[in-house]
Amino acid sequence: MSDVPLLQQLIDALRCLPGVGPKSATRMAFHVLERDREGGRRLAQVLASAVERIGHCSRCRTLTEHEVCRLCANPQRDRSVLCVVENPTDVMALEQATGFSGLYFVLGGRLSPLDGVGPGELGMEQLRQRLTGEEVKEVILATTTTVEGEATAHYVAQMAGSLGCAVTRIAHGVPLGGELEYVDSGTLAHAFAGRHRV
Amino acid sequence: MSDVPLLQQLIDALRCLPGVGPKSATRMAFHVLERDREGGRRLAQVLASAVERIGHCSRCRTLTEHEVCRLCANPQRDRSVLCVVENPTDVMALEQATGFSGLYFVLGGRLSPLDGVGPGELGMEQLRQRLTGEEVKEVILATTTTVEGEATAHYVAQMAGSLGCAVTRIAHGVPLGGELEYVDSGTLAHAFAGRHRV
Repeated sequence: MSDVPLLQQLIDALRCLPGVGPKSATRMAFHVLERDREGGRRLAQVLASAVERIGHCSRCRTLTEHEVCRLCANPQRDRSVLCVVENPTDVMALEQATGFSGLYFVLGGRLSPLDGVGPGELGMEQLRQRLTGEEVKEVILATTTTVEGEATAHYVAQMAGSLGCAVTRIAHGVPLGGELEYVDSGTLAHAFAGRHRV
Repeated sequence: MSDVPLLQQLIDALRCLPGVGPKSATRMAFHVLERDREGGRRLAQVLASAVERIGHCSRCRTLTEHEVCRLCANPQRDRSVLCVVENPTDVMALEQATGFSGLYFVLGGRLSPLDGVGPGELGMEQLRQRLTGEEVKEVILATTTTVEGEATAHYVAQMAGSLGCAVTRIAHGVPLGGELEYVDSGTLAHAFAGRHRV
């Protein structure tokens, strides 16, 4: 690689980031080199450190640089409610948007046998142990509404129900402030069928 | 900073890149950690190395990790033609698009006295020495058509003319394949006034 100019190597390396094509990568490389070397230096350090040190929480499987993540380690959190999500980003979104004070379990994907993703890959055994051994009273399902997400939710609901936990699912429907004419028909049909008495 | 989770530090650090807000930075961080640690490791290495080692070419002022850039060091390039551009990105764009075989001189900006950018900041003295001491016969102006870019072009043209070099400017007009109705009026007026006999 030593005969490729370092600038070109940098542009190529930036393309590992999602949504970054050749033009954006070039712009990023020149921006960092011409205007923000300090930011670039810091990004290089933090990125190297993050790639080496960040792993999965041994309790909830989210991303963390510690053995147990901050949420699981926090004694203030309500251990009787467990929210099951697909990805670590979902934990972050729920933490920012809601006042949820329980704990999470991150599956790391959804059931998709054709892609080789079965209950084992999603840590279902670990989830079962957690529901068996601990004082979890309610399991909140927050998986997506794709076919695979629904199948995953169904699997978790069956398991949690058989272990005596209450199972709930977050509401799906028309987004707040959403004009009906711009909402996709699947969502609208779902919201209409799921109407409830006021 | 040690009490901020490493993941959050990574998201914050990614925002030094242009066009990257909180959502994109989060997406990038999760993508690298969950799907492309090898790419992330390589980016961290190359970025650290680039920020430390890339400087400006002592002859043409473009970005390079060497004392003299590959273009200036190449004995095959035609030393009698010098193309004056504003930024290192312009060199890259011209190299990719044209068959130009001469050399470049990168000003690193354009004359803008109100922002404290005078001839000194743009290396005009270095350019003068180069036009005086070497066999440059033609200077090609490829600065932008902004007011500052035009002023810069005028300054370079005066200097090069007084030193006996031929001065040319790249053509400005309607882009190839451009529909007239979608071309901005400034470009269209310029193209109309600059019409030439066929």
